Amino acid sequence: MKEFDLISRYFSQQTAKRKDVVLGIGDDCALLAPAENQHIAVTTDTLVAGVHFPENTSPRAIGHKAVAVNLSDLAAVGAEPTWISLALTLPNVDQEWISEFSIGVFELCEYYNVQLVGGDTTQGPLSITITAQGIVPKSKFIRRSTAKAGDWLYVTGELGDAALALQNVQGKVGLAESVKGQVFEQLDYPKPRVLAGQALRDYATSAIDISDGLLADLAHICKASEVGAKVILENVPISAAMLETLGREKAIELAVSGGDDYELLFSVSEDNKVGMETALSNLGIPHTCIGQLNRQETITTVLDGEKVILNGQGFEHFAESVE
Amino acid sequence: MKEFDLISRYFSQQTAKRKDVVLGIGDDCALLAPAENQHIAVTTDTLVAGVHFPENTSPRAIGHKAVAVNLSDLAAVGAEPTWISLALTLPNVDQEWISEFSIGVFELCEYYNVQLVGGDTTQGPLSITITAQGIVPKSKFIRRSTAKAGDWLYVTGELGDAALALQNVQGKVGLAESVKGQVFEQLDYPKPRVLAGQALRDYATSAIDISDGLLADLAHICKASEVGAKVILENVPISAAMLETLGREKAIELAVSGGDDYELLFSVSEDNKVGMETALSNLGIPHTCIGQLNRQETITTVLDGEKVILNGQGFEHFAESVE
Repeated sequence: MKEFDLISRYFSQQTAKRKDVVLGIGDDCALLAPAENQHIAVTTDTLVAGVHFPENTSPRAIGHKAVAVNLSDLAAVGAEPTWISLALTLPNVDQEWISEFSIGVFELCEYYNVQLVGGDTTQGPLSITITAQGIVPKSKFIRRSTAKAGDWLYVTGELGDAALALQNVQGKVGLAESVKGQVFEQLDYPKPRVLAGQALRDYATSAIDISDGLLADLAHICKASEVGAKVILENVPISAAMLETLGREKAIELAVSGGDDYELLFSVSEDNKVGMETALSNLGIPHTCIGQLNRQETITTVLDGEKVILNGQGFEHFAESVE
Repeated sequence: MKEFDLISRYFSQQTAKRKDVVLGIGDDCALLAPAENQHIAVTTDTLVAGVHFPENTSPRAIGHKAVAVNLSDLAAVGAEPTWISLALTLPNVDQEWISEFSIGVFELCEYYNVQLVGGDTTQGPLSITITAQGIVPKSKFIRRSTAKAGDWLYVTGELGDAALALQNVQGKVGLAESVKGQVFEQLDYPKPRVLAGQALRDYATSAIDISDGLLADLAHICKASEVGAKVILENVPISAAMLETLGREKAIELAVSGGDDYELLFSVSEDNKVGMETALSNLGIPHTCIGQLNRQETITTVLDGEKVILNGQGFEHFAESVE
């Protein structure tokens, strides 16, 4: 495989040209000159065909998603995305595929002024690894481990549409034509919450992006911060499409357990609640309070005032009410 | 696959703890605080099973090589390696395999004080992508594109042993037991020329690491710098094992066309020749002058005073006869 030809042909066409890139693609390394007073955030995510996206996903969607999942990690720490490296493993050289894929990669890069600074093209089973980097002012990095009991728990956007689309691909659920477009857009072209992440630098006590599912990712925050949480399930934001397709309980179940949302889950102290809500509202970013952190060692889920447990087949209701 | 368990169990055991890593593995991103007055070099390389290493390669060797090929790219630009991100795709969770692999990764990292700052573990056909970063004083980056006609051409070490080992794996050539250890060491545990690269910052006009083969990589320098080259083939350093196994002409052919050497090919001006030779000798780094750059548009190869054309893979772009 003529990796040099491939790279030069499709991946040199980007229009993003950052001033902090001293040398881009084409040498053994790229050379970056980050501004002083900034820290660098770095993250890596791999997408494997058949594991992270259905085999028949369009190449443009694959390119978009490979960038989006990495920018979402940068958003979760409050970083401004700046550079990516792309490792692309392809079973064969399909020029149309590569062209479409590169369009998907560059759409998001150009929107956020992120420059592709290097990569490697190899032959093998289809997979994409992107390492994304961003900059964040010193001491403004949002961690998972700094949430406090008493902080309020929020999510951006609506949860579950991507998981619903995946269930449709897997033949587990039918979808009305009227909702297909919306839920597949969420699965194939997730929008990383880049601006929300940067806005939250001044307010959030912790943040994580929801890639594994709301409750799984909340567990990461709780473990890292040594706190518990109570989640009010009826407050979890779900789309009208979800509600219509699955009914209320099943929709909530998928919204809290499905992955691939790439919304942000974050905590904010009582004192910063109003400031945060104003900041996100000014940016037009939907956000919903879904619960509160506490001093317990568990995550409690409450539906209509009753404690419930998600057991794999659905919600198990407990008669005990919660305070 | 419980990627979090995997990562925390094996990849948190590293001993390298750099002061410029504000936050390491465990959050959505790592956070780096590079020193001022430094630029950052970044490179990405993927190894795919069956393509970049034989399927039966030991996991320790795979881990070593995945790091080595990336540190070699950093060496080629004169950078000091600092941080790596690891994307590991595995067909299944084989704890012994992962344990051995992580030993291979960390051996080199610890030697060079390189910290693993993040990664992703996914399920799929075996492949490893590492993004490595390093630091280099501003304006001290060695490029491919800055060689000049008249500069002398050098390589570090000896070439071809790794290619010889690969030919043995492929059943193309038999190996005496007395040389097997040495040549397989070169294939499985290549030593990136990290110190040589940093020493060359003050002397080299261009550099590249020899991963595709001497003549192919020389062609990259010539193309980027718009120069030609004359290579004196009998000066190309080859091991006694190569000479003994293949005979002189076949040994030279493999040494200039085989890949996977991870030695450095570099150019130096007449004025800096003595300084460079002294610097590398003081570090105990073997280096050999193999030719000179010129104003022509081709690479000429000379053996015993006669121009010759080799039909190896490294020569595909230069099949035309030269004057």
